[in-house]
Amino acid sequence: MSHSGAHGVRDDRDRHSQFTLHRRVQWYELDSAGIVHFSTYFRYMEEAEHAFWRAAGLSIAPPDSEIGWPRIAVACEYHGPLHFEDEFEVRIRIAAMTDKTLRYSCVLMRGEKKIATGTMTTVCVRVQPGQPMRAVSLPDDIRSRFCVASAADV
Amino acid sequence: MSHSGAHGVRDDRDRHSQFTLHRRVQWYELDSAGIVHFSTYFRYMEEAEHAFWRAAGLSIAPPDSEIGWPRIAVACEYHGPLHFEDEFEVRIRIAAMTDKTLRYSCVLMRGEKKIATGTMTTVCVRVQPGQPMRAVSLPDDIRSRFCVASAADV
Amino acid sequence: MSHSGAHGVRDDRDRHSQFTLHRRVQWYELDSAGIVHFSTYFRYMEEAEHAFWRAAGLSIAPPDSEIGWPRIAVACEYHGPLHFEDEFEVRIRIAAMTDKTLRYSCVLMRGEKKIATGTMTTVCVRVQPGQPMRAVSLPDDIRSRFCVASAADV
Amino acid sequence: MSHSGAHGVRDDRDRHSQFTLHRRVQWYELDSAGIVHFSTYFRYMEEAEHAFWRAAGLSIAPPDSEIGWPRIAVACEYHGPLHFEDEFEVRIRIAAMTDKTLRYSCVLMRGEKKIATGTMTTVCVRVQPGQPMRAVSLPDDIRSRFCVASAADV
Repeated sequence: MSHSGAHGVRDDRDRHSQFTLHRRVQWYELDSAGIVHFSTYFRYMEEAEHAFWRAAGLSIAPPDSEIGWPRIAVACEYHGPLHFEDEFEVRIRIAAMTDKTLRYSCVLMRGEKKIATGTMTTVCVRVQPGQPMRAVSLPDDIRSRFCVASAADV
Repeated sequence: MSHSGAHGVRDDRDRHSQFTLHRRVQWYELDSAGIVHFSTYFRYMEEAEHAFWRAAGLSIAPPDSEIGWPRIAVACEYHGPLHFEDEFEVRIRIAAMTDKTLRYSCVLMRGEKKIATGTMTTVCVRVQPGQPMRAVSLPDDIRSRFCVASAADV
Repeated sequence: MSHSGAHGVRDDRDRHSQFTLHRRVQWYELDSAGIVHFSTYFRYMEEAEHAFWRAAGLSIAPPDSEIGWPRIAVACEYHGPLHFEDEFEVRIRIAAMTDKTLRYSCVLMRGEKKIATGTMTTVCVRVQPGQPMRAVSLPDDIRSRFCVASAADV
Repeated sequence: MSHSGAHGVRDDRDRHSQFTLHRRVQWYELDSAGIVHFSTYFRYMEEAEHAFWRAAGLSIAPPDSEIGWPRIAVACEYHGPLHFEDEFEVRIRIAAMTDKTLRYSCVLMRGEKKIATGTMTTVCVRVQPGQPMRAVSLPDDIRSRFCVASAADV
């Protein structure tokens, strides 16, 4: 957490800009080539995102919530494979925050080896039964828990 | 479909007791041993179940439905592996129907080779926001579309 | 297929530049918000890729092949949700072909509604037991079956 | 671990009969009804199995191994749902060990609530390129690390 500036020390303690998830590769995540299937990397990034929210004192989907967070754009570059039982980490940080969206950037590392880099942009939506999702502003109680990571955190 | 007896010819045409799904193995369904992961067989059986319902003129999850069909027991025996791009079929039939439950039996075949046999028992539940699921009788408009397959159908 | 030019009519018939997969959303592909999980879109794109190869007379992973096709970069933009039992199509085409890589672009459509657009870049590698994957030139018998789609095909 | 008898104390320390995995429900494991998809329970059981092997000093799939462990029969009974972010545990133990097979029994608990009970029977096979899998005796270095759990361990 490296936010600083006008919001002062209190914000520094209360706002979260990044998180690291530690994880091990499971058998059912491999494909027939013996490496983690490329689509699974997005599940790893999402798992890190939700653990990040918990670390910030939030759930991304509390019971009966009318707020949802669908993706609007994601991307991943693959630099090396992950194999069965590999231990790795997902470093997720907030790269941008607008009125209605959050953008995360992620780096997957196995030890010192960079395995993949990715981004996920999500939009805050209101979900009501029988109606299409509608983009809305980030609720204050959520916005106030996060801040954009500084470039030095990359 | 082989139901017969007191309900007569009309029931014979309107009630469904079995269905066959044709499918091809996808890459993301394989594990690192190059064979379909054992958990995926249950997805195949479910896919056959839902196609069976569509063939009977129903959706198992129409929009805004308050009825759900969680599993209460499933099992599978594996007789041979499925490999990448294998074509196979899932033969699903209704093995039992009680007031609140449906039990399916399934056979997976690749050509003449029996790949797996399985069962799934589901219970009809009412789902209401903020309340636990509660078992209820099968709705008449669903019950009337199905019947138990005869032993000869196996 | 729209390739034309120096290679003449014969090439036009033998080379493939695009393919359309027709598909239905399965229950196990949904998330708790009732929409297809964002990671699943990459499985749809891959499924279209492999069907595309079959349509070109090839398998992307024939038994005992020493050639593999890991992803080096993928991306997806989401324009609307997919729901249970939705029928949709994945239009995949070859956007670029280099000595060692293939890049696909994909559009997912539900009727006239554009659901998502994506790209996948894969690299041809030689896979040998106990050795790391090594990038190699596309084999001629594969390269000769494909060509880049024209801009008008988008 | 409760093995005792002729093999003495040393065996008591070296042989493993059971293991408990602690886990949290991930978003991508839920289905559209907001509960963990029934097929995912088998992935939980497998995850516990592999962690159990690691706790016994083994990997179920070391690099270049010619031994594999396909399932021959599995089953699960569901007693209650798991929801997003639920913490639960998988208690796995060895229920039977024959010359060529291992049978596990599993209980999933969320606090004091029994969520599911399951079994998995696996067979030890030799896997050689271009040949079908062939059942073989459990290798001694694996057999010697495990023992059947006593009834009191259930």
